[in-house]
Amino acid sequence: MERLKKQMEFIIEVDKLKDIIRQTNLTNGERKENDAEHSWHLALMAVFLSEYAKEPVDVLQVIKMVLIHDLVEIDAGDTYLYDEAGNGTKAAREQKAAERIFNILPGDQAEELFKLWQEFEDRKTPESKFANTLDRIQPVLLNDATEGRAWREHDVCIDQIMSKNEYTSQGSDVLWTYIQDVFEKNIENGNIKRSL
Amino acid sequence: MERLKKQMEFIIEVDKLKDIIRQTNLTNGERKENDAEHSWHLALMAVFLSEYAKEPVDVLQVIKMVLIHDLVEIDAGDTYLYDEAGNGTKAAREQKAAERIFNILPGDQAEELFKLWQEFEDRKTPESKFANTLDRIQPVLLNDATEGRAWREHDVCIDQIMSKNEYTSQGSDVLWTYIQDVFEKNIENGNIKRSL
Repeated sequence: MERLKKQMEFIIEVDKLKDIIRQTNLTNGERKENDAEHSWHLALMAVFLSEYAKEPVDVLQVIKMVLIHDLVEIDAGDTYLYDEAGNGTKAAREQKAAERIFNILPGDQAEELFKLWQEFEDRKTPESKFANTLDRIQPVLLNDATEGRAWREHDVCIDQIMSKNEYTSQGSDVLWTYIQDVFEKNIENGNIKRSL
Repeated sequence: MERLKKQMEFIIEVDKLKDIIRQTNLTNGERKENDAEHSWHLALMAVFLSEYAKEPVDVLQVIKMVLIHDLVEIDAGDTYLYDEAGNGTKAAREQKAAERIFNILPGDQAEELFKLWQEFEDRKTPESKFANTLDRIQPVLLNDATEGRAWREHDVCIDQIMSKNEYTSQGSDVLWTYIQDVFEKNIENGNIKRSL
């Protein structure tokens, strides 16, 4: 039962992901989203949008990655995409977090989890490219549904957005085209600035 | 693009699951959990606990079911397990909700979603039995981690709990044994009443 005990300890530990607050607002505009909600949303998107992956993908692998991709933020916190200082220390903080959190699991599953997370971070496989595309487009959809609130709060311009989306097209041409249209609409209505 | 438009409308609509509040408290005790967080937690449990399924399971199918099993609550609301009156009208309310929400999707995906939800509700396949077991044990783990808060708030006794867990063992002997020990511990420390 030592194995099950470790697994249950992990299941309880990751409950903390529900407290990690992101910058994206829910579509009702009432509060910001947390990482657990975000991860659920990405997994559901993987189920219903995987036909648009640029290369054929193993949907289970995509879902596993999006379910676990933010677990390191339990210790490392959410680093906003446009927080340049935070992004400088992000890798080291997240590596340390992974070592504590993933190793709560039995050895074989901890290893599987490290591999999954690394695959997501490396963006080399069709599955991880698509998972990263979903991770980038989901907040855009929520921002668009809340009249660009997070963009306006952070005074974001289109050049910043494009620099953070250089990999988004790698996972899906169709979704990237869709999202570019969303950007264009939000530039036109002033939610995204044309320049700084 | 009509297909993608429908899919995106669905993706935005289901954001509302993040507002459907359950009776279970987060492990930090600060607030109650919502359905999106709960669904994410179950999906993660499916990844790391499927070795304990009573029969071999297709993990992707289990995950799909737990990701979507509460979507009907966007319209029908969460019905607490021990709310007898609410449970009397639950099926009709949820069927109506499914018809509105699932049909936002393109026809083939709406049909897939109806089938998934029905499979979960019917508890006949190995995957749906295991998914239902996860759905039952996750709140028990959170209640146990919060000194039985939800049980104490609702003055729940062990007979009520057992009557609502008649199917829990069908998905996993190992997890059911584990959870019975959790019940026993919480009876002993007074978080669950021995009788009404």
